[in-house]
Amino acid sequence: MPKRVERPFAGLVALPNFPVTLLTCAENVMTAVSFHYYSTRPACLQIGVRKDNWTHQLILEHKEFGINLPTADMMDKVKYIGEVSGRVEDKWAATGLTKQRATQIKSVLVAECPVNLECKVVHQVAYEGSHTWFIGRIHAAHVDTSYDKANALLFWMQEFRAMGDVLLKY
Amino acid sequence: MPKRVERPFAGLVALPNFPVTLLTCAENVMTAVSFHYYSTRPACLQIGVRKDNWTHQLILEHKEFGINLPTADMMDKVKYIGEVSGRVEDKWAATGLTKQRATQIKSVLVAECPVNLECKVVHQVAYEGSHTWFIGRIHAAHVDTSYDKANALLFWMQEFRAMGDVLLKY
Repeated sequence: MPKRVERPFAGLVALPNFPVTLLTCAENVMTAVSFHYYSTRPACLQIGVRKDNWTHQLILEHKEFGINLPTADMMDKVKYIGEVSGRVEDKWAATGLTKQRATQIKSVLVAECPVNLECKVVHQVAYEGSHTWFIGRIHAAHVDTSYDKANALLFWMQEFRAMGDVLLKY
Repeated sequence: MPKRVERPFAGLVALPNFPVTLLTCAENVMTAVSFHYYSTRPACLQIGVRKDNWTHQLILEHKEFGINLPTADMMDKVKYIGEVSGRVEDKWAATGLTKQRATQIKSVLVAECPVNLECKVVHQVAYEGSHTWFIGRIHAAHVDTSYDKANALLFWMQEFRAMGDVLLKY
């Protein structure tokens, strides 16, 4: 297995595709692949946002966010939402997606997403980089009764992928 | 789309499968799904490790780690490495995986993985949870010349999955 020695950034390019989320804060929605869990107890998520995104300013102000998991058949909307800024375009009108009221936060959720998680920011990671990572504690979860993870949407470096087959479950 | 209102932990259970990595530190290797990028400039990764894992102690001591991306055909080894502790078992001997010397860190890498990233810890996230998240700056990347992301391995909550088809590339 011959291996090339690459520069550090090429190491990022080589990463596999990660699940993508529609991140909501206040009335805005953006696409984010910089998303993972943070802790199981307490149940916390983390989300990374570039400092020049409008959502960055909104999360600093409102200290909360919604995580909305799109399905693969929403790919075109997810792509559009990731390409334009809510500062200048009404992404809801353009995509036809529907605002869903949350129960524990004031920010809206995306009704068409089968999973919506309401989070309040508990920490902002101090290390400086291209993104600010916010850690949010989950205060409420809404899960479509027919939700199937097989329909999740993955993204990395200009490539959308579907989830693959289950190889092992235990 | 009827939705159940769930407790916070159920929100974590509902997350899709994430790429899995073999995390190396010193001579040890463990399986971790708590892995993502952190920043593009500088090129940094982040890794979450439970406080009772041996690797947690090793990273605190050595302040570096290796990220090794396994392929789907390594699933059985990845599962085994995730189930036993390097404190008590020789995971290298049991799996037949090979230690590869790194160039910028002293920790070993996994030769059979098509991508190996050498990272030095630059920050430890301060918010307390079940995991400690370490941010590592990438100092070197080794990428198999025939590497294909289609062969990456995903995991979440007792379920391994393959990567799915490319839906859109631009």
